[in-house]
Amino acid sequence: MAIIYLDNAASTWPKPPSVKEKMAEVIEEFAANPGRGGHALAMKASKTVFRTRAQLSRLFGIQNPNDLFFYLNATQALNQAIKGFLKDGDHVVSTTIEHNSVRRPLEYMSRTKQVEVTYVEPRGDQLFYLEDFAQAIRPNTRLLVVSHASNLTGVILPIAELGQLAKQHGIKFLVDASQTAGVLPIHVEEMNIDMLAFPGHKGLYGPQGTGGLYVHGEIDLEPMIHGGTGSQSESIEQPATRPDRYESGTVNTVGLAGLLAGGSHVMEKGVEAIGQHEWELVRKTIQALQKIPGVTVYGPGIETQRVGVVSFNLAGVDASEASFILDQQYGIATRAGFHCSPLGHQTTGTEMIGAVRASFGMYNTEQEVEALIEAVDEIAAAFR
Amino acid sequence: MAIIYLDNAASTWPKPPSVKEKMAEVIEEFAANPGRGGHALAMKASKTVFRTRAQLSRLFGIQNPNDLFFYLNATQALNQAIKGFLKDGDHVVSTTIEHNSVRRPLEYMSRTKQVEVTYVEPRGDQLFYLEDFAQAIRPNTRLLVVSHASNLTGVILPIAELGQLAKQHGIKFLVDASQTAGVLPIHVEEMNIDMLAFPGHKGLYGPQGTGGLYVHGEIDLEPMIHGGTGSQSESIEQPATRPDRYESGTVNTVGLAGLLAGGSHVMEKGVEAIGQHEWELVRKTIQALQKIPGVTVYGPGIETQRVGVVSFNLAGVDASEASFILDQQYGIATRAGFHCSPLGHQTTGTEMIGAVRASFGMYNTEQEVEALIEAVDEIAAAFR
Repeated sequence: MAIIYLDNAASTWPKPPSVKEKMAEVIEEFAANPGRGGHALAMKASKTVFRTRAQLSRLFGIQNPNDLFFYLNATQALNQAIKGFLKDGDHVVSTTIEHNSVRRPLEYMSRTKQVEVTYVEPRGDQLFYLEDFAQAIRPNTRLLVVSHASNLTGVILPIAELGQLAKQHGIKFLVDASQTAGVLPIHVEEMNIDMLAFPGHKGLYGPQGTGGLYVHGEIDLEPMIHGGTGSQSESIEQPATRPDRYESGTVNTVGLAGLLAGGSHVMEKGVEAIGQHEWELVRKTIQALQKIPGVTVYGPGIETQRVGVVSFNLAGVDASEASFILDQQYGIATRAGFHCSPLGHQTTGTEMIGAVRASFGMYNTEQEVEALIEAVDEIAAAFR
Repeated sequence: MAIIYLDNAASTWPKPPSVKEKMAEVIEEFAANPGRGGHALAMKASKTVFRTRAQLSRLFGIQNPNDLFFYLNATQALNQAIKGFLKDGDHVVSTTIEHNSVRRPLEYMSRTKQVEVTYVEPRGDQLFYLEDFAQAIRPNTRLLVVSHASNLTGVILPIAELGQLAKQHGIKFLVDASQTAGVLPIHVEEMNIDMLAFPGHKGLYGPQGTGGLYVHGEIDLEPMIHGGTGSQSESIEQPATRPDRYESGTVNTVGLAGLLAGGSHVMEKGVEAIGQHEWELVRKTIQALQKIPGVTVYGPGIETQRVGVVSFNLAGVDASEASFILDQQYGIATRAGFHCSPLGHQTTGTEMIGAVRASFGMYNTEQEVEALIEAVDEIAAAFR
């Protein structure tokens, strides 16, 4: 049975063949330590890492590639941004749909520092409104942090407008692009984004073990990790130069080479074309699911574009059981649970039951959507 | 010109062929997100990560594999251990040969918290003595942190005895095994090691982007990274269960699969055999270098075993120039500089000039050592 992979919001799969090829080439030819020695292999490694930095900078409209730092995943990037930026007495505006990678660092800061957070909710139509953010801003608000799109409902936030709002109020703007990097256009300069965190292994089709953080040149974060950087080794203090200041220890050269290949593939296909393709699959899925008796689909109506995520439940079937049957009986990989987003579930009223999530990538097809629908139809009928 | 790679202390190369093959297999067959969904591909990913955990636990004598956490590199592991453990008013005993991945976090803690550090020095023979550590201990000493071996002189510290000392004084013992994991025997139980940090891409022959931290089950560190763990998603607090508590965000499945392959290869060859081979290359190198007029070799005499590192300088030639000539004219990759170890350089008297470092891995041969010696001989003669 061929697997139908609908868990792309957790990690995209399959990857473009070039990802594997590029990683194999690096590990075979020059898996040395970049920036840690001037010899030929280290230079080759260094160049690969810089190329990845430069290429993703082009993708996100980042002017200076050295303002882009690499981490193990988006979670680390978000921790660096949030914990490195906030100080005692700060107020933060965020949303109820944030992933735990934003929510838990914010809660940690409010527990250990005098940081207060206001979580803006979507309205009854599951959408977010600019006025609600404007109203949440206080004199001591220093940071606005939002997910570009929900990993549960797929709803997209108006980040260009939010960037404008933050700028007007002199607030820094951090965007979690975990569900959107490679799927929706992002331009940090045009959208007034001060910090942007993204994973390498989702919409950019790189391998796991890669993620990044852009930080505007005028923002000085306290580094989260202190250590060797290959520069100013004689100093016991962390160097001030970027990206070294925020990239202590050996970077994931092999993984970043894979990310370069994945990102290149995405840029060739075109971010907007990929986003459009996923949105069409989502629309088709929702329309068909809504016709199946006993199925509840979460999120806004289909007149509003979403990213490639559809969460739903079947009456009388536990979400994890439904997901298990889809996997075991139909070979369809979905995900059940809370999707690391507790407040998002309160927002959709699914906090006690979780939901089944089908999430699409650029390689998914209409035929795969049809197979999902048929399977859900059969399962729903069996439990009626 | 075939490359002679003598920069294994920065990153080992080449890797066993199985590393590339295993990584390619994972990225092709199931590069899903482990622990983030119950479907078949996620389960396969989860199993791979657990196997790596279990295998390295066997290597290091760790009883419960869930006490081993994976990070981007050893630097992150050391930051988690040091910053997660130390509290206001603590005193730490360390050494002057620590890498910046230990030194800089310690300096950060002493700058921002009321943490004091005593750095024990080697004696005139470049060796460390137990009495000097015993004398440094104070009533408020809570942590002893040492590098198992210097990345500059290759000198090996008596960690079994130090573990005994720490235990007698009720002090926790953190070992940085960056230069020794896979090269010298390490057994956390027998050596009384409470925390062990190691890289995946050096003596374990895994890819970059992998590193680990063992933390004894009775030590509760404050997590450095907060975020989604795939468990207890409904809670806004970090879960208490291991390894989830310390592994927020997506782990490097592909890299860890490579580490499993690299580590397996090392265990097949045998850690002691590899260490012995490298020590023989070191001894041969030192003996030959000492015969070349104008060459100064750093570190203890050759009656004491070291890890595979030889640092030296040539009279009248800047270390980085010498390293550059070795690379460009002879195709020999060494490293020049401070090797992220400022105090280590003060100890050897090289703080103003750095040193050329040749470092060996399991694939290096006696012929390669002879080529290095010939090259250094020629360069020294040219500058005489």
